[in-house]
Amino acid sequence: MRTAPQPAIEGDFALPDVFPLESGGTLRGARLRYAIYGKINAAADNVVLVCHALSGSALVAEWWPAIFSLPGVIDPDHDAVLGVNILGSCYGSTGPASIDPATGRPYGNRFPLVEIRDIVRSQALLLDFLGIARLKSAVGASIGGMQVLEWAIQFPSRVARATAIAVAPLNAMGLGLNHLQRQAIMLDPEWRDGNYAPDRQPQRGLALARALAVCSYKSEALFEERFGRKPDRSGEDPWTGNGRFDVAGYLDHQGEKFYSRFDANSYLAITRMMDLFDPARGFVSALQAWQRVEAAVTLVGISSDWLFPPGDVVALSEAMRAAGARCSYRELVSDHGHDAFLAEPELLIEVLRGGEKTG
Amino acid sequence: MRTAPQPAIEGDFALPDVFPLESGGTLRGARLRYAIYGKINAAADNVVLVCHALSGSALVAEWWPAIFSLPGVIDPDHDAVLGVNILGSCYGSTGPASIDPATGRPYGNRFPLVEIRDIVRSQALLLDFLGIARLKSAVGASIGGMQVLEWAIQFPSRVARATAIAVAPLNAMGLGLNHLQRQAIMLDPEWRDGNYAPDRQPQRGLALARALAVCSYKSEALFEERFGRKPDRSGEDPWTGNGRFDVAGYLDHQGEKFYSRFDANSYLAITRMMDLFDPARGFVSALQAWQRVEAAVTLVGISSDWLFPPGDVVALSEAMRAAGARCSYRELVSDHGHDAFLAEPELLIEVLRGGEKTG
Repeated sequence: MRTAPQPAIEGDFALPDVFPLESGGTLRGARLRYAIYGKINAAADNVVLVCHALSGSALVAEWWPAIFSLPGVIDPDHDAVLGVNILGSCYGSTGPASIDPATGRPYGNRFPLVEIRDIVRSQALLLDFLGIARLKSAVGASIGGMQVLEWAIQFPSRVARATAIAVAPLNAMGLGLNHLQRQAIMLDPEWRDGNYAPDRQPQRGLALARALAVCSYKSEALFEERFGRKPDRSGEDPWTGNGRFDVAGYLDHQGEKFYSRFDANSYLAITRMMDLFDPARGFVSALQAWQRVEAAVTLVGISSDWLFPPGDVVALSEAMRAAGARCSYRELVSDHGHDAFLAEPELLIEVLRGGEKTG
Repeated sequence: MRTAPQPAIEGDFALPDVFPLESGGTLRGARLRYAIYGKINAAADNVVLVCHALSGSALVAEWWPAIFSLPGVIDPDHDAVLGVNILGSCYGSTGPASIDPATGRPYGNRFPLVEIRDIVRSQALLLDFLGIARLKSAVGASIGGMQVLEWAIQFPSRVARATAIAVAPLNAMGLGLNHLQRQAIMLDPEWRDGNYAPDRQPQRGLALARALAVCSYKSEALFEERFGRKPDRSGEDPWTGNGRFDVAGYLDHQGEKFYSRFDANSYLAITRMMDLFDPARGFVSALQAWQRVEAAVTLVGISSDWLFPPGDVVALSEAMRAAGARCSYRELVSDHGHDAFLAEPELLIEVLRGGEKTG
């Protein structure tokens, strides 16, 4: 399983016909796409749940191949990896592009509000079906890390080890940037109040949203090193008034790559989910929430992350320890910003190596 | 002149019928709107030129009242303040909303590319007209600071003291964010390739551009302190899926306030001008450009500014000193981000107090 793994199983799991949501709504006839890499053993105690971020999928090896080498998270020779596409996404699980059984047409903008807790609860039902009483490990970054933390709070006896990277409740700047990304999508006349045809996406709006998100996933230092004030590599001249600088060409390219692989309404749904993540919600206090945690938790902050600043991750680790949870904090020092967990896997491996610390 | 000053003169200055531009184009029949506060003395050696940033105007007292109190920049009892609306703007000087004499219709998207050097050269012609051989002082922040620096390079004998705040050549992140702001405007179907009617602005696109800019003018710390994860103050509930967080309501409000007072094509023109600012352009090296400077220069960086990070301002001051220019650097320590020069005038006054330092 060490190189280019293929899933042993790809499956579709039917949730109960009526799946109630935190928001008070329900999803009917919803399904989860999942993938299993390696073999679940007889005791089903070797399963690592890998939770994906905004644009990931159940096919973990495609977007995070380093996951199979993370020390303290996985034993690559004996463990099985489970990836589950989240509700609201567009990679096989029920989302806004799926058919609403009530109307026979895609949900579009009528897709109900789904929260991280709904995601985690749907995954727990899949675990029941697969006969997995307890996860050896749950790991994820960004929105994936939000799922990991909710797993540790909502199902404390079902996760032995939790590793959450570059995550905290989104701060005001992050909430603002997500809002503006949604505004960009909704500004595109092709959005049509969310009821666009599958082949008529609001491409420009989605591209603009993605480009803005990419700014927040990278760092000023990385952009400066990569692009600086260089003109676009295609040879455009900014001094003509329409020519782009290199960074603009890069951002446009990132936007264009994205709209051919992602659904605009899924983008709206998942950024809202990201905004709403608040592990203390419904508890008397954050302390009460963190007191539930039984897992050994590792939090990783990224030094140059300005979407989830390392200080916010440190604060989270301190809150967990204050509640008596076993939580260690590690910092990945990188200029790559929020994306460093994908861009610098060797550094992530290095940071996680060396057993438990309570730093 | 200490409180709520009114301009002694507001005027329109006709540039030469053909005004050549750096880009190779020309403006015909262009005009500059200017305002003078106080009285220019007989020797005309008491004039402080206040250069405005993106959305400012000649009416300096309206958007930067602190200017009349800045130590080392102005003697409020004896000096006169000159404000000049920049070409490309929409507060009286010729810009995209002005009538193109060649067509009898607004320039719209056909407004030629104007650079900071064109702005400064047009201001120098106004100074000729007003009989001002040499400015006692030129001061500005952001795009205003770009003008100040070009003044010091292009007309070294005409400016005795130059104070440039929160400015440097825009880095890659800034270039990227400006690009995305322009994309937002052009995504709005009401933009109509720049040929919208004056009363049919691309309001939503311009509001989105402004909101994104506002994020870059503030800091994460300020947003966190002001808004945190609070729901919108109007009582909206984010957990319904459409309710906004407070920061989103704030950004929307900033956008809405803006489109009623600013022209979308001016926004495009001025952000391009901002992108292109490069004091070394056309010189063999930056060293050669800075060697021209005769003014006593003060550069001010703002600790929490991520649009023009203080490190970039420090680097600029070091380059100027390496070229033999008299340049001091000061840092305004504030959580207000780029906008601190407007938001915390008392701190700016404090930073400028105490005579020349060569820090």
